[in-house]
Amino acid sequence: MKKLLYGVAYYDEYMPYDRLDQDIQMMKDAGINVVRIAESTWSTHEPQNGVFDFTSVDRVLDAMHKAGIEVIVGTPTYAVPTWLVKEHPDVLATTPQGPGKYGARQIMDITNPVYLFHAERIIRKLIGRVSQHPAVIGFQTDNETKHYHTSGPNVQLQFVKYLRERFESLEELNRKFGLDYWSNRINSWEDFPSVVGTINGSLGAAFSQFQRKLVTDFLAWQVAIVNEYKREDQFVTQNFDFEWRGHSFGVQPDVDHFAASEAFDVTGVDIYHPSQDDLTGIEISFGGDVARSTKHNNYLVLETEAQAFTHWVPYPGQLRLQAFSHLASGANMVAYWHWHSIHNSFETYWKGLLSHDFEPNPVYEEAQTIGKDFARLSTHLVNLKKKNKTAILVSNEALTSINWFKFNMNSPLNYNDIVRRLYDELYKLNIGTDIVHPGTESFDDYDLLIVPSLYSAPDALLEKLNRYVEQGGHVVYTSRSGFTDEHVQVRTSQQPGVISEACGIHYSLFVEPKNVTLKDNPFKVAEDDNQVDTWMELITPTTAEVLAYYDHPHWGKYAAITQNRYGQGTATYIGCIVSSAVIRELFSSVAKKAGVWGLDQEASYPIIVKSGTNDLGRTIRYYFNYSEQAGSVVYPHGDGKELIGEQSVTHGQLLQLKPWSVIIIEEA
Amino acid sequence: MKKLLYGVAYYDEYMPYDRLDQDIQMMKDAGINVVRIAESTWSTHEPQNGVFDFTSVDRVLDAMHKAGIEVIVGTPTYAVPTWLVKEHPDVLATTPQGPGKYGARQIMDITNPVYLFHAERIIRKLIGRVSQHPAVIGFQTDNETKHYHTSGPNVQLQFVKYLRERFESLEELNRKFGLDYWSNRINSWEDFPSVVGTINGSLGAAFSQFQRKLVTDFLAWQVAIVNEYKREDQFVTQNFDFEWRGHSFGVQPDVDHFAASEAFDVTGVDIYHPSQDDLTGIEISFGGDVARSTKHNNYLVLETEAQAFTHWVPYPGQLRLQAFSHLASGANMVAYWHWHSIHNSFETYWKGLLSHDFEPNPVYEEAQTIGKDFARLSTHLVNLKKKNKTAILVSNEALTSINWFKFNMNSPLNYNDIVRRLYDELYKLNIGTDIVHPGTESFDDYDLLIVPSLYSAPDALLEKLNRYVEQGGHVVYTSRSGFTDEHVQVRTSQQPGVISEACGIHYSLFVEPKNVTLKDNPFKVAEDDNQVDTWMELITPTTAEVLAYYDHPHWGKYAAITQNRYGQGTATYIGCIVSSAVIRELFSSVAKKAGVWGLDQEASYPIIVKSGTNDLGRTIRYYFNYSEQAGSVVYPHGDGKELIGEQSVTHGQLLQLKPWSVIIIEEA
Amino acid sequence: MKKLLYGVAYYDEYMPYDRLDQDIQMMKDAGINVVRIAESTWSTHEPQNGVFDFTSVDRVLDAMHKAGIEVIVGTPTYAVPTWLVKEHPDVLATTPQGPGKYGARQIMDITNPVYLFHAERIIRKLIGRVSQHPAVIGFQTDNETKHYHTSGPNVQLQFVKYLRERFESLEELNRKFGLDYWSNRINSWEDFPSVVGTINGSLGAAFSQFQRKLVTDFLAWQVAIVNEYKREDQFVTQNFDFEWRGHSFGVQPDVDHFAASEAFDVTGVDIYHPSQDDLTGIEISFGGDVARSTKHNNYLVLETEAQAFTHWVPYPGQLRLQAFSHLASGANMVAYWHWHSIHNSFETYWKGLLSHDFEPNPVYEEAQTIGKDFARLSTHLVNLKKKNKTAILVSNEALTSINWFKFNMNSPLNYNDIVRRLYDELYKLNIGTDIVHPGTESFDDYDLLIVPSLYSAPDALLEKLNRYVEQGGHVVYTSRSGFTDEHVQVRTSQQPGVISEACGIHYSLFVEPKNVTLKDNPFKVAEDDNQVDTWMELITPTTAEVLAYYDHPHWGKYAAITQNRYGQGTATYIGCIVSSAVIRELFSSVAKKAGVWGLDQEASYPIIVKSGTNDLGRTIRYYFNYSEQAGSVVYPHGDGKELIGEQSVTHGQLLQLKPWSVIIIEEA
Repeated sequence: MKKLLYGVAYYDEYMPYDRLDQDIQMMKDAGINVVRIAESTWSTHEPQNGVFDFTSVDRVLDAMHKAGIEVIVGTPTYAVPTWLVKEHPDVLATTPQGPGKYGARQIMDITNPVYLFHAERIIRKLIGRVSQHPAVIGFQTDNETKHYHTSGPNVQLQFVKYLRERFESLEELNRKFGLDYWSNRINSWEDFPSVVGTINGSLGAAFSQFQRKLVTDFLAWQVAIVNEYKREDQFVTQNFDFEWRGHSFGVQPDVDHFAASEAFDVTGVDIYHPSQDDLTGIEISFGGDVARSTKHNNYLVLETEAQAFTHWVPYPGQLRLQAFSHLASGANMVAYWHWHSIHNSFETYWKGLLSHDFEPNPVYEEAQTIGKDFARLSTHLVNLKKKNKTAILVSNEALTSINWFKFNMNSPLNYNDIVRRLYDELYKLNIGTDIVHPGTESFDDYDLLIVPSLYSAPDALLEKLNRYVEQGGHVVYTSRSGFTDEHVQVRTSQQPGVISEACGIHYSLFVEPKNVTLKDNPFKVAEDDNQVDTWMELITPTTAEVLAYYDHPHWGKYAAITQNRYGQGTATYIGCIVSSAVIRELFSSVAKKAGVWGLDQEASYPIIVKSGTNDLGRTIRYYFNYSEQAGSVVYPHGDGKELIGEQSVTHGQLLQLKPWSVIIIEEA
Repeated sequence: MKKLLYGVAYYDEYMPYDRLDQDIQMMKDAGINVVRIAESTWSTHEPQNGVFDFTSVDRVLDAMHKAGIEVIVGTPTYAVPTWLVKEHPDVLATTPQGPGKYGARQIMDITNPVYLFHAERIIRKLIGRVSQHPAVIGFQTDNETKHYHTSGPNVQLQFVKYLRERFESLEELNRKFGLDYWSNRINSWEDFPSVVGTINGSLGAAFSQFQRKLVTDFLAWQVAIVNEYKREDQFVTQNFDFEWRGHSFGVQPDVDHFAASEAFDVTGVDIYHPSQDDLTGIEISFGGDVARSTKHNNYLVLETEAQAFTHWVPYPGQLRLQAFSHLASGANMVAYWHWHSIHNSFETYWKGLLSHDFEPNPVYEEAQTIGKDFARLSTHLVNLKKKNKTAILVSNEALTSINWFKFNMNSPLNYNDIVRRLYDELYKLNIGTDIVHPGTESFDDYDLLIVPSLYSAPDALLEKLNRYVEQGGHVVYTSRSGFTDEHVQVRTSQQPGVISEACGIHYSLFVEPKNVTLKDNPFKVAEDDNQVDTWMELITPTTAEVLAYYDHPHWGKYAAITQNRYGQGTATYIGCIVSSAVIRELFSSVAKKAGVWGLDQEASYPIIVKSGTNDLGRTIRYYFNYSEQAGSVVYPHGDGKELIGEQSVTHGQLLQLKPWSVIIIEEA
Repeated sequence: MKKLLYGVAYYDEYMPYDRLDQDIQMMKDAGINVVRIAESTWSTHEPQNGVFDFTSVDRVLDAMHKAGIEVIVGTPTYAVPTWLVKEHPDVLATTPQGPGKYGARQIMDITNPVYLFHAERIIRKLIGRVSQHPAVIGFQTDNETKHYHTSGPNVQLQFVKYLRERFESLEELNRKFGLDYWSNRINSWEDFPSVVGTINGSLGAAFSQFQRKLVTDFLAWQVAIVNEYKREDQFVTQNFDFEWRGHSFGVQPDVDHFAASEAFDVTGVDIYHPSQDDLTGIEISFGGDVARSTKHNNYLVLETEAQAFTHWVPYPGQLRLQAFSHLASGANMVAYWHWHSIHNSFETYWKGLLSHDFEPNPVYEEAQTIGKDFARLSTHLVNLKKKNKTAILVSNEALTSINWFKFNMNSPLNYNDIVRRLYDELYKLNIGTDIVHPGTESFDDYDLLIVPSLYSAPDALLEKLNRYVEQGGHVVYTSRSGFTDEHVQVRTSQQPGVISEACGIHYSLFVEPKNVTLKDNPFKVAEDDNQVDTWMELITPTTAEVLAYYDHPHWGKYAAITQNRYGQGTATYIGCIVSSAVIRELFSSVAKKAGVWGLDQEASYPIIVKSGTNDLGRTIRYYFNYSEQAGSVVYPHGDGKELIGEQSVTHGQLLQLKPWSVIIIEEA
């Protein structure tokens, strides 16, 4: 990227009256320099089968170009037109709930050839038409693509073929998946039952993996088509999203972000997060870390909230804080979904930068200051490069398998809860973190590796982790790591299986804690924070040091948390669910041991510090105050200049931070 | 009506043994002078296709007539016989949940021609047979008719034709409904998708309106048939019911009571309400006000509770209190569902006046006193006329559209909650209230108009409201009023759109309040009652006076409640969800301004005062004590006579009210 | 039985590698002398239609025999193979939720002839092959058989024929079931609608009864086949289970245990229960009492928990406590589900005696001590006979009908809650209890009969209960008993109908109590325990003595609990839902009156006493301490010997009981 992009999603098609010129003027006033169009409006662009009408696209491109605003064009394939469904109802995905019903977006079978035929045609028509337009800087394929739980007979057939390629024989599959259980054994490929009703977690997890592959393949297929048209200077991106809990929360269960992003020039994401009193910046940081790590490069925030919902309308200062937080994680673009607020249909209360009245409003007015600063500071802030020494290992396979085999019958705790409990403390300690995954070739760039409940993993990965420790790496595992192999078959060795070697422990029993604490409060946390919940492994150390025992009349002899020196490194193992406070204390201690504890750790949440190197080779340091109260921090780094206020800053100076504010220092 | 009717639903068909004579004797003893029969027992009257058996009807009519008890005969069409469903399974409504299953009542497609053919035949057979019987005073068509969510392909087809009549073109429909969004655009009528899966709130709301029209049409069709047979002195009525929350709660979402009641001679309703310690009389009053307002006339309470459920069995005195409360709202009939308690099937624990043992019991014994008083006081209490100066405007369209677009994602708050929060305070303040609706020709009869969250409304209605204020009316709006037009399209003007003019305010942002109060507690309510919840509009007054600001660090400059003098009247606007206590204080103040504050406001709940004019031209004043404690009130009106105890009453006298009791004064 | 059996379920088919010899050695070490095999693995034994492979059965039988371990072979019919479902999808049960999906066990239509054909063939092949094997001591037919809610058209057809046999005419059926209600009347057998959607409780209850008969018939059919092959010395059993609430809770709604057990030589059950701090022994006792009562004989515990779930892993001592508790209720076998923990599929966290690592662990090590004691004490403990003077009458019909007609709209209270509230207090008072049922020929063996809410019962049963009282029996009824007949038709007499005679009371109204207590706390319980909840009948005594009145401003004149001397006995009637504390006080008083209060009542929970007579004609007395604290009890019986510690015990000696421990005394 040559500059920071500040953008909005723009839907000329949704406008209640012609506002293009007015809107562009207001965008210019706010420093908006890019718009994203067309990804949702297939039915407008192809009103009937084979009849095309790109009027709205053409006019927006021309007007934007004239105004100097760049455009990202989306392929409009994630919402199918009525005529297509009327002609071919089976383009809708059949899911475990049955055949689809028309209405929402993202309801089609992304493997259906009728859908693919029509999708390809509209992509070629649209991208072929716009690719040479000077306004167009890039393309987005589809939007928030997932598999939509497609699992009809055709998908089932593909799945069986997929399995047949991956197993030497049906006998091997029966054995690895344990299908003898409850007479689920399949003795002839023809007998393969629909996986929709399966109770076999291995089979179910394999199907989820297959469904994620459908997404990867579908996106790569779209990219290949778009690549036929795009210019050298244009990029293709995808708008990935995250596990949704009313906001972007964690690892996306339905997409392998690392595999799927390979086909793209640049990774794009959308990040929606709590706001007002609940604004912490964690989701901005987590989503950004994932996005940046997919291609080890800068990324685009294709969508984030402006006003959005009643509980998200930002307090004064928060919109700025959010925008610069994205940059501080490595984003080169911050765009709002969306410019205006929609007057009908469904997302009417997911408001844009403008309210339904199109008038300037306090949020829009704050955006104006952001646009101004982005333009002014672009050369300093674009292309921020980061070199983190800490990483967290996330795994779609662990996520899926823990969905099949939960911590217990009643606990809602799932994989992303664990990931976030760990990630959040790294964030709050200002420990810059990359995201790695089971396919990551080497962990050697990192000194500290956090491994949340890696429940399903092949031997090779676990052995690689053992070698990583042996050669000086520091790993923190949480409970249930290493328990099953890549087919979600529980290991027949003592637990935690392969990693027992580096961890220096074993266990055979695990129980549900009731009124259990860590004995003698070893981390000196508040009494409530010393509780153990949901899950506890009864650990016997072999060579490990015990960091915490359980306090319990019958299980008190077992270890809860251990640490083992193994070769040149250490492996820390948390065998139970502990509080954030315990995690934080443990991380502080391990980070020091791993040598990733530095000057930035002198501040902690709500003061958040992020840094990197800019295109000029200088270090950029962001200081954020995620608080309703003013804050301050002694500046521990080299002299430099605060970019927003354009003031010089010297080592040891007390930096003042207003509520919900940011300052940016460029070291000299 | 010539006299008060005191009745029961009577099902000879359900009797475990022949009890007709005994039952009639017990009815006579209790002053029962009307029974309602036949609406649920099609399968008994037409045991096979085209085979008719009206034995039970004939014998009941004859016996009742002999005993001097009048009869209302229902058309038995709301529960279809087994043979009909066996022959034509598609008479059952296909709903969003799929095809119907036989069992319950009210499960058929009221547009299905097979159903209509058979329904018409049984109506003609039954009504033709009984209409000249001297016992029969009227007819009820069907029962608690609704559309039962019928939405199969045939209904969909009718809906598309219905829309085609209402829009100039598909293009106009696409635009008004915003169908470009998420590619929902329909470019050819043939492509119209089933509305069952739609996510478009405009389309969904239009379908609900259409479904309500199906009910109106179906009922009018039945009335037309019955009218062919009925005598001059007979009436046709319908048993309307209300939104059900374990009891009659609010505006019926599935029926437009005002449109549907047009075809009828007299409106009938059923009203079920909390009892025992939870008896307030509010539902009796609300349901009665709706029923009376449909035809600006007296109405029939065709069903209400006798013993009913374990939590409704009335305390001593309550059955009387309830019966006279119905009269005080303008009812000319109070009938129990039902005479006896059913020994099998489903509603076994919805007990009647008699228990399953048919023995006299305390509830029956109290009914005897009511029957006696009804008979004795009939000429004084029948045909009570009311002339209220306050009305509340309810709207099926607002209800439906707020179901599509809720206050926020998690709040269960819906339209009827708002209606009831307002209505309840009017009730408790003893402000007699009519119900008006979007189709009401003129509001000029009223001095005070309460408008709960009128979220969807055409410009014309809102302009009429502006004119109403201008010409001296007083309106109280609650939040979100005026936000969208009749197609649930958000207005593109500043909010609250058209009514901004009379309200003298505008707003562009709205947020979810957390720990927000009204600044400086302007209504002097308890601290908890000063909280704002769920929704707050950030209001800027133009000409309005601010009655309350928000107390919030960032939104404190915005108004919460405003009042604007506009022309000769005032428009008060409540931009957030406030407590009942605040509503009550506000209503007191506005009522005074509007001149609807009078002598009856010297008492308030649990002392409830209702009044009207009787056939003798005299004023009747009911005083109710809805309390476990005795109460008293200084009688502020002219001298008269207490009718129950037959004592004279003079101005200024202290009236004593026993727990759960009523006194009735006829002014001289 | 000649000896105590100590066993495990063993699945050679599920093993991740060949472990047969190792497993057998570990079993021998633990005193395991029986294994249960083959009931879940049809697809392994018949990999394709008509192709059989009993390798795993043969090798297990041979190896077990060689090791002196006996084997129970199950018919593998409760989990259907993939090929069968692929060939004939309609072997899966159609339920009210629609057609079945392959995956889980227990999903087939047990009336489907295709299923029955294949089931019969695999039974004949398997049992024919193994029946003469010397290792085989018995057979289990199917497993935890239920009807799986099968209710497709074929089942409906059978149901209609079943009804036609039971009613003189359709007219009679219409009348008994009250089908006129809501036009449900059926005027021709051809019109009979599917019962799936019915709202008629009588019809619904009849269908449940029919479905239970399907289970009885299916099991008897299997037994008849197995009987063709079995040797004289072999038995056929069934593994019955109980209402499941995350553990075995109460009467099984879907099976009539008494009818179904008739076909078997010996009754088997599985019993799973809370553990750790929640271990009380109640479920062991209840399940055992049911099992023992089915055939008035000893029974087999075919499955119970070893480690099982995280919340069930036993504390030290608990596994022993549990094992001997089963024996103390009359079990001759205690077997764990299962030997090892499964590495894939679904029940991976329902752990066995061994963890996934197959290593010895604390639970296994405790099992070793049990195995040793079972072997050593077998002649003293096997075939324990009990002669209880108290019984509790349970009824599938009462259970079903109370599901149709709940205590009120919101209460989750159901029949088994009532049963357990009563049973638990008998258990805690150490009152040994048999289970009787509506089909029990005579109650004369008992002095005290507890009758939980016998809501549906024929006159004959109630009259028998009246006679029982008259002739000196003592009955305690709880509310709603006698309310409806065998067709769930409410009686038309005053309530409680037929039993009014013996109870000396009647009532006509019943209400939901709010803030109601028993007047003057007649049972001297804690204030909270004196509350009445959910349901209260307004009882008027005729001849009964009132044990408690309600404390309520309006219902205070009615009785809550009464007791009536009738003939030589007494009938106590509890007309409301009372606390466990009140039940316990009432039971103590009635037990004394009935003469069932003895020396064992000097101890109470957590000290539990059970006794019986062994094969040597001597009295065996078990003392259990269900507590984390040590306990003691003065031994009130004759001198004897404590069998585990082999110490003599004398009358009046203080017995010391460690936490979670048992001692066993054989009287001299």
